[in-house]
Amino acid sequence: MTKFDEATQAIRVDENTYDVCLDPGYSIGGPLNGGYLMAVVLRAVVDDSPFEHPVSTTSQFHKAPAPGPAQVRVERLKAGRTAAFTRATLVQDGVAQIESLVTTATLHGAEPVYADPPGHRMPPAEQCVKLPDPKPESGMTLNAQMELLFDPPTIGWLGGEPTGRPEARAYFRMTEPQDPDPFVLALAIDALPPVVFSAGMRGWAPTVDLTWHLRALPAPGPLTLIGSGRLIADGWFDEDVEAWDATGRLVAQSRQLARVGRG
Amino acid sequence: MTKFDEATQAIRVDENTYDVCLDPGYSIGGPLNGGYLMAVVLRAVVDDSPFEHPVSTTSQFHKAPAPGPAQVRVERLKAGRTAAFTRATLVQDGVAQIESLVTTATLHGAEPVYADPPGHRMPPAEQCVKLPDPKPESGMTLNAQMELLFDPPTIGWLGGEPTGRPEARAYFRMTEPQDPDPFVLALAIDALPPVVFSAGMRGWAPTVDLTWHLRALPAPGPLTLIGSGRLIADGWFDEDVEAWDATGRLVAQSRQLARVGRG
Repeated sequence: MTKFDEATQAIRVDENTYDVCLDPGYSIGGPLNGGYLMAVVLRAVVDDSPFEHPVSTTSQFHKAPAPGPAQVRVERLKAGRTAAFTRATLVQDGVAQIESLVTTATLHGAEPVYADPPGHRMPPAEQCVKLPDPKPESGMTLNAQMELLFDPPTIGWLGGEPTGRPEARAYFRMTEPQDPDPFVLALAIDALPPVVFSAGMRGWAPTVDLTWHLRALPAPGPLTLIGSGRLIADGWFDEDVEAWDATGRLVAQSRQLARVGRG
Repeated sequence: MTKFDEATQAIRVDENTYDVCLDPGYSIGGPLNGGYLMAVVLRAVVDDSPFEHPVSTTSQFHKAPAPGPAQVRVERLKAGRTAAFTRATLVQDGVAQIESLVTTATLHGAEPVYADPPGHRMPPAEQCVKLPDPKPESGMTLNAQMELLFDPPTIGWLGGEPTGRPEARAYFRMTEPQDPDPFVLALAIDALPPVVFSAGMRGWAPTVDLTWHLRALPAPGPLTLIGSGRLIADGWFDEDVEAWDATGRLVAQSRQLARVGRG
């Protein structure tokens, strides 16, 4: 069991409740990373489901739970022949923190009937760059859990040279060697810096809701994350992230609606 | 009040319940159109919210409700300064049919800070084509409610010439003149034929879940709907639809996960 597997463990305590322990190692400067929290929720949902894979997850982020004990309450809304539907609520100190709707099914890894190519070609990993290590006082503990190698222009904002477009692209792998699975994908799909940083904005950009679809089980090896946005207006922006596996297969798609930071 | 406004009316009966009457005029050959059903749900959610607009809606389609009386049960999960979160369930004969999570907020129509152009240019309306009128026995009553003018290649499948890619593009307006609003957008965003038809597949393609984001209030005039998909595999496909208003502004984005038809 990897540290990530342990940090996302969900232990059933009754028909509708799982105990979890939110790990301080997934903090983005105070709040815990949304992808990590979705992975925790999905551990409970998948355990409860007659199917194996979380093919669709929508999470609304109501509050920012603190590291420590919490519960995932699951309610199976319907189970059919090919899919089951679950409502899941992450609760801490009796207060609902994250509300999710999850569709589970079992993917069989059939060859695609149709597959678009990636919209962006990544430079080879050796031309990509890491973010500088965060200062210990920043509380950015998440960065130590994963290795992100960025397509350089998409972190030009770090040196005062944003590209002017909402975008972020990087290779992703866990620092502790672990083959990607649907739970790692939940983390990966929300692991990039907000795409609006590249459009010249800064500051805390809280996710309001995030939907992601698991499209195939990822092959072992690094993932490629391609993040983009279509519109920044009225204080809101969309962020789309695609995750491609090491064989060049699209394995996950996400879209989140988030607030532009004021910072 | 237009026929559509009437067909989507939701009348509060107690703190958490709205009565609705599902209109047989929105049938797609038996089942009612998912976008129409979302519009009905959103009438109740918006009425209940302290905010004006449904900026994010995720619906899981558990069953296919029949025309006739039904209820929308709303539960306000949280209301903050800029957004509120609601769980809404469409119930018929005591059975939950559609489960939704909705984020409401108030859009102010500010000029975009960043806006991508449309990925596809539509031919002028006079070069676009309608679908043939459905046979009365098909039960496709939805078609009479709206006028869709298609980019011709994207309905080539009708004459046995699919483009080979999942896609559908059309101009949209209500048959009974009505300026588009968020409820019309809920209908529009699910109004195109399944994009997989253009990839050579046929048959009933049921939506499993659909998430759409309202990005701006649409200007009066026709909408342009741009539908596409990235991957068809393992019996599942994604369908993305963008709605652009008559001034060329992106007003809505959707993604649904659906099953490939066996028909």
